[in-house]
Amino acid sequence: MQVIRTIAEMREARSSITGTVGLVATLGGIHIGHTTHMDTVRPLCDVLIGSLFLNPTQFGTNEDISSYPADEEADLAEFEKHGTDFVFAPTADEMYPPTGTGVPQIDPGPAAKVLEGAHRPDHFKGVATVVVRLFSIISPNMATFGEKDAQQLRIIQHINESLKLGIDIIPIPTKRESDGFAVSSRNAYLSPAEREAATILYKALTVAKLSWDSGERSAEVLRFMMISVLAGEPLAEIQYTSIADVDTFAELDQVEHSARALLAMKIGPARLIDNILLA
Amino acid sequence: MQVIRTIAEMREARSSITGTVGLVATLGGIHIGHTTHMDTVRPLCDVLIGSLFLNPTQFGTNEDISSYPADEEADLAEFEKHGTDFVFAPTADEMYPPTGTGVPQIDPGPAAKVLEGAHRPDHFKGVATVVVRLFSIISPNMATFGEKDAQQLRIIQHINESLKLGIDIIPIPTKRESDGFAVSSRNAYLSPAEREAATILYKALTVAKLSWDSGERSAEVLRFMMISVLAGEPLAEIQYTSIADVDTFAELDQVEHSARALLAMKIGPARLIDNILLA
Repeated sequence: MQVIRTIAEMREARSSITGTVGLVATLGGIHIGHTTHMDTVRPLCDVLIGSLFLNPTQFGTNEDISSYPADEEADLAEFEKHGTDFVFAPTADEMYPPTGTGVPQIDPGPAAKVLEGAHRPDHFKGVATVVVRLFSIISPNMATFGEKDAQQLRIIQHINESLKLGIDIIPIPTKRESDGFAVSSRNAYLSPAEREAATILYKALTVAKLSWDSGERSAEVLRFMMISVLAGEPLAEIQYTSIADVDTFAELDQVEHSARALLAMKIGPARLIDNILLA
Repeated sequence: MQVIRTIAEMREARSSITGTVGLVATLGGIHIGHTTHMDTVRPLCDVLIGSLFLNPTQFGTNEDISSYPADEEADLAEFEKHGTDFVFAPTADEMYPPTGTGVPQIDPGPAAKVLEGAHRPDHFKGVATVVVRLFSIISPNMATFGEKDAQQLRIIQHINESLKLGIDIIPIPTKRESDGFAVSSRNAYLSPAEREAATILYKALTVAKLSWDSGERSAEVLRFMMISVLAGEPLAEIQYTSIADVDTFAELDQVEHSARALLAMKIGPARLIDNILLA
C-alpha cells in the first residue's frame, strides 16, 4: 500500500492505473463502518484507493473537528488490512492552498438546506466541495458512501448526476452494534451511561418502522411516535425528528410510497444522527 | 473523425484513449476564431476532441439562441479540416435529461455577478454547468477558451482551480479582422452599415490602451475616454464600459499593475462584446 500526500503525485499514480478504481473517502477515525465500505468495494474494482482527510470546510466553528478521533497510523493499518492499494492523505494546505481563489463552489441545492443542513449551515457545501475535489483528483469509477449519512449520500448522488461525473455511487448500509446502535466515530465521546442512553435512537426508528410496516401512513403520527420514545430518555436532547421525502428531504404530511425517518440527538458531548428507510 | 451523440459513447471512446486529450468546446457556428483554437491545441495533444452543443442554459429567455448560427454539416467539416479526432455533439435532452434532478449547480462566485453576469443573469451559471459536464464526460488534459470572452475564461480558470480539475486551460487571443473588429458568431447578424459602425468597439479599446501605454492610471479617465469614442457612433448603444480587475472583474478606481478594459454594445440586432488587456 502506498500513502500519497500531494495532489500531483495522486494524479500521477492515477494516470498509471488502467483498470477500474474504487474510492472509500474518510475523515479518519476508521472503524468497522468504514472497513465495511472497503470490504464491499474491494471485490468490485481493480484498484482500491482510500482517502484520509479531516476536511475543515465541513465543520462549523463551534463543532468538534479538534476532538475528532485522529490516529493516522492506526487508520493506515486498517486501510492496508482491508486491501487498499493507495491512501490519499493530503494536508489541509494541499487541499485548500492559501493562495487559491476557491471562489466557485458547488451549490448543493435545496436538499442541503434542511435537517443536517439547517443545524450545520455550511456543512453540505463543505462536503460537496471536498468530495468533488477528491473525485477530480482521484477519478474513481465507483465510490462508497454510507446510508447512515443519508442526506449526504443523496446530495452526492445529485452532484454525480448533475455534473455528469459518471461515478457509480455505492450506498453502504449502516453498520450497527448488537443493540442496534449505529457505529460512528463520534460514539467515542460517550460515557458508558450515555452509550446506554444512545440506544434510544434506534429504538425510536424501530418504532416508526414497525408502525409503518403495520400500515401507518401519517407522517405526523410517525414523528410523534418517535418523539414519544425519545422523551423517555432524560439524557437525550432532540435536535430533530423527521419523516422526509427520500429525494428532497422535505417533510412529508402523508407517506405515499416511501420515506426516510431521520433523527438527530445530543447526548452528553456527542451529537448523534441515525435514520431508517420506510419502504 | 468520429461524431459521438451520447454521453455513454463519449465516455467509452475516452476510456480507450491513452495519450493526452485536448478539448475545443463550441456552441457551433464555427469561424476562424474557433479554428484558431483547434490549430493552437492540435500540436499540443495526442487526441483532439471538439464539442458542438448549443447550450440552452447559458441563454436568457429573451436572448438569441433561436437565431444563433447553426449549420452542423459545415461545423463538422471545419472540425475535420483542422485535425479533430472526435466531435461530441449531444442533443439537449442527452445533456439535460428531463428526468434528471439537475439540482446541485456550480456557484461561479462574485466574478460572475458583474458586467456580462449583470446583463445576462444566469449566463455564467449555465456556462459553468455545461463546461463542468463537458469536462466530466470528456476528461480533457487541456482545453482552450477565448480571451474575447475574458470573464468566462477567468471564471472557468477559477472553477478549474477550485474543483481541482487539473486541466490545462489554454487562453486563445482574440482573432480580429483587418480593421480590428473581433470575429464572433454574432457578427452575422449585422448589416453592412452596422458592421462598419461596429469598428467603434476596437477603436475605443485601442484609445484606452494607447492612453494606458502613455501613463494614464485613472480608471475613471480610461472609462471616460472609451465612452467619448463610442459616443461618436450613433448606431452603437453602450451597455457597459469597464476598467476592471483582471481576476475579480470589480471596477477599479486606480489601475496598479494591470486591468482589463471591457465593453458591451448593442448595434442593430446584435449584442457585441470585446476587451483588451492593459498590462
